[in-house]
Amino acid sequence: MSTLNPKRTVAELKDLRRLTADELGAQRVAWTDTWLEARAWLREKLDALGLETHKDEAGNVWSTLKGKSEKSLLIGGHMDSVPNGGWLDGCLNVMAGLEVIRRIKDEYGIPPVTVQLVDWADEEGARFGRSLFGSSSCAGTMKPDEERNRTDKEGIRFEDALKRCGVDIDKAHLSHKELKNVAAHLELHVEQGPVLLDLDLPLGTVLGTYGVERHAMTFYGQAAHSGSTPMNRRKDAFLAAAKMSPEIYRITDRHGGVCTIGSVTTKPGIVTSVVEECRITLDQRILDADKLATMLREAKEASERFAKEGNVTVKWEHLWSISPEHFHPDLLQFCDEAIKETCGYIKRLPSGPLHDAAEVSKAGIPTVMMFTQSLHGISHNKIEDTKEEHIEMSVTALDKLAEKTMGWILEQS
Amino acid sequence: MSTLNPKRTVAELKDLRRLTADELGAQRVAWTDTWLEARAWLREKLDALGLETHKDEAGNVWSTLKGKSEKSLLIGGHMDSVPNGGWLDGCLNVMAGLEVIRRIKDEYGIPPVTVQLVDWADEEGARFGRSLFGSSSCAGTMKPDEERNRTDKEGIRFEDALKRCGVDIDKAHLSHKELKNVAAHLELHVEQGPVLLDLDLPLGTVLGTYGVERHAMTFYGQAAHSGSTPMNRRKDAFLAAAKMSPEIYRITDRHGGVCTIGSVTTKPGIVTSVVEECRITLDQRILDADKLATMLREAKEASERFAKEGNVTVKWEHLWSISPEHFHPDLLQFCDEAIKETCGYIKRLPSGPLHDAAEVSKAGIPTVMMFTQSLHGISHNKIEDTKEEHIEMSVTALDKLAEKTMGWILEQS
Repeated sequence: MSTLNPKRTVAELKDLRRLTADELGAQRVAWTDTWLEARAWLREKLDALGLETHKDEAGNVWSTLKGKSEKSLLIGGHMDSVPNGGWLDGCLNVMAGLEVIRRIKDEYGIPPVTVQLVDWADEEGARFGRSLFGSSSCAGTMKPDEERNRTDKEGIRFEDALKRCGVDIDKAHLSHKELKNVAAHLELHVEQGPVLLDLDLPLGTVLGTYGVERHAMTFYGQAAHSGSTPMNRRKDAFLAAAKMSPEIYRITDRHGGVCTIGSVTTKPGIVTSVVEECRITLDQRILDADKLATMLREAKEASERFAKEGNVTVKWEHLWSISPEHFHPDLLQFCDEAIKETCGYIKRLPSGPLHDAAEVSKAGIPTVMMFTQSLHGISHNKIEDTKEEHIEMSVTALDKLAEKTMGWILEQS
Repeated sequence: MSTLNPKRTVAELKDLRRLTADELGAQRVAWTDTWLEARAWLREKLDALGLETHKDEAGNVWSTLKGKSEKSLLIGGHMDSVPNGGWLDGCLNVMAGLEVIRRIKDEYGIPPVTVQLVDWADEEGARFGRSLFGSSSCAGTMKPDEERNRTDKEGIRFEDALKRCGVDIDKAHLSHKELKNVAAHLELHVEQGPVLLDLDLPLGTVLGTYGVERHAMTFYGQAAHSGSTPMNRRKDAFLAAAKMSPEIYRITDRHGGVCTIGSVTTKPGIVTSVVEECRITLDQRILDADKLATMLREAKEASERFAKEGNVTVKWEHLWSISPEHFHPDLLQFCDEAIKETCGYIKRLPSGPLHDAAEVSKAGIPTVMMFTQSLHGISHNKIEDTKEEHIEMSVTALDKLAEKTMGWILEQS
């Protein structure tokens, strides 16, 4: 008889909320005091369970229950949140993973394979605009020179904020050694979107994470007086930029995925002048790499067509991109089975948001994610929520997935 | 033999440019140090000519050459510019007016009627979004309670910026007394559009100023994660706002006139979120009052249609409006004659941009404006320019117009 206690996970998540949220939401922003407080609270629980716990060079915290085999099953989440964030994003997995390890320790004493829990550092990138810092450092894709000089709103440098928390950005890559014996990696997360909600399903197997192309484009026209410039003489940078908005909906109609224009700025930006410069950001995501490339090409072509139509010019600026990541087929199947045993159905869906799991998977570690339904289909917001019964089901299903994956690791050895 | 020296006007305008422009253009934004510097530079010239000069309660600077009659001929311009503005907008008239007064003083000593030059305060409204502050205060149409809480980009309040320059917004209306003896008002200005340029004519008589409807509309959608929110679940405030841009071109296709979306702001305005709030400004102008009302109604209807299509809402905010103003028929004829004597032809055109002349005309003062050709058909831009020979012709024609108008004032008395 399993000693897994999913209700304890719900209670612990509520404790964490009491400790680290205010009336605006969760405030566990990485590299801040509230985040350190959340981690200290977690540490007490890890120590109480008798796990070996240490912090790596990137600030990730690893807790290990040694097994008969050195090969390990890793469960990874993140305690950090965005400012005014939800109570579940990231920490659901840490607390559910802790509960699963409690069960495994209770059942096996020394389990057949080693089991580990990692709390990744700065998944959100909320303060410095660099997501997945801890997991990408560990995976080997973080380049210190591209990151150290980022600043937060107060002008504090990324490198200095890390130092304050005992992390030397130039040594963060050394954390890669932690992956040496990791044989599989699981991540449970709230969906953050409305797909499971619309289907009225508590859980889903995540196929992989969308690839992302993130660019800005600036249209260059000519400032001209709003009263004196005939319409047919204008070089209106906003007219060209505005046409991109319905266009991105046409692009996703053709290919699927999502496209977002999130920021628009105009210069001179005054009521009495035709817009001289208009900069818009474009975020494009889809699970298929070829489609992603096509969507980007079509957006570029459209922008050039609109620029030409309006007698303006356009320049593109690459902000960031990541290729799609497909999770491991065996683990996808175990995740399906775990959900079926818990809830009685199978549902697979892609992840639009990025997750640490994508970095770990890129580093060659077999990986899968499981989603729980998000009420309102929303996260990064204090109204983010999941029904308690769904949280409990997710702990149960994660536990089943962990058990299946331990067996698989043994078979692989 | 006239002592009018139009070349001196060109030289003085160049001096002013050296003093108050940088590599991006003129920086004489009202209520800033550079504007005060430009006014101090002008004051030296006014004092050198022996004019009586004083600042009124609205910050307008009046210089008077007393004549045999108290009835006065007023020439009005403005030293303030938009940021990164042109070298002629506003100040051409001040400097040409100064030259005309030099000629009159030289020729008459004491002229038959009083002659005045006014430098209106904050014609552009560039910093606080309120055009024609000085002239409307003087005309009696400025309402302090509607204006005092405007803020600039740094959050400085309009009322406080005025106070720093010695203007109490609640007393600005007292400047109305300055108009007591004004019998006619002339304003020379660069066209700021391409009409005279396209016809290859140096000067034109201005029929009147377009009526203006100036509004902001804010579309309210919902912030949502750019990766996890399916396109058909979005409430994208930018999508609705963007559709307004081609729409305003369709409106002017139907009715004539001009419409401009000059400023676009987005919230939260980050690359990873659907736009929750998008605010755009709309400036609509035409010489016919009924058409102006129709254009505004059509824009409102379109915004509501686009909001509905995108499952968002829209709210309109009235920023400012002014009815069309037709100039005085006698003065229109004198302006035609002055241009014909100078250049050999007659050309009348409306003014799309607003001018202080519209406020003065509304206050019941017979008014007319004269335009000089704008190279590139553009202003509010550092490339704003006018051929030096056209500037010189404009000084000559303004002088002829002033002489004719003085005679007319005498006849009227």
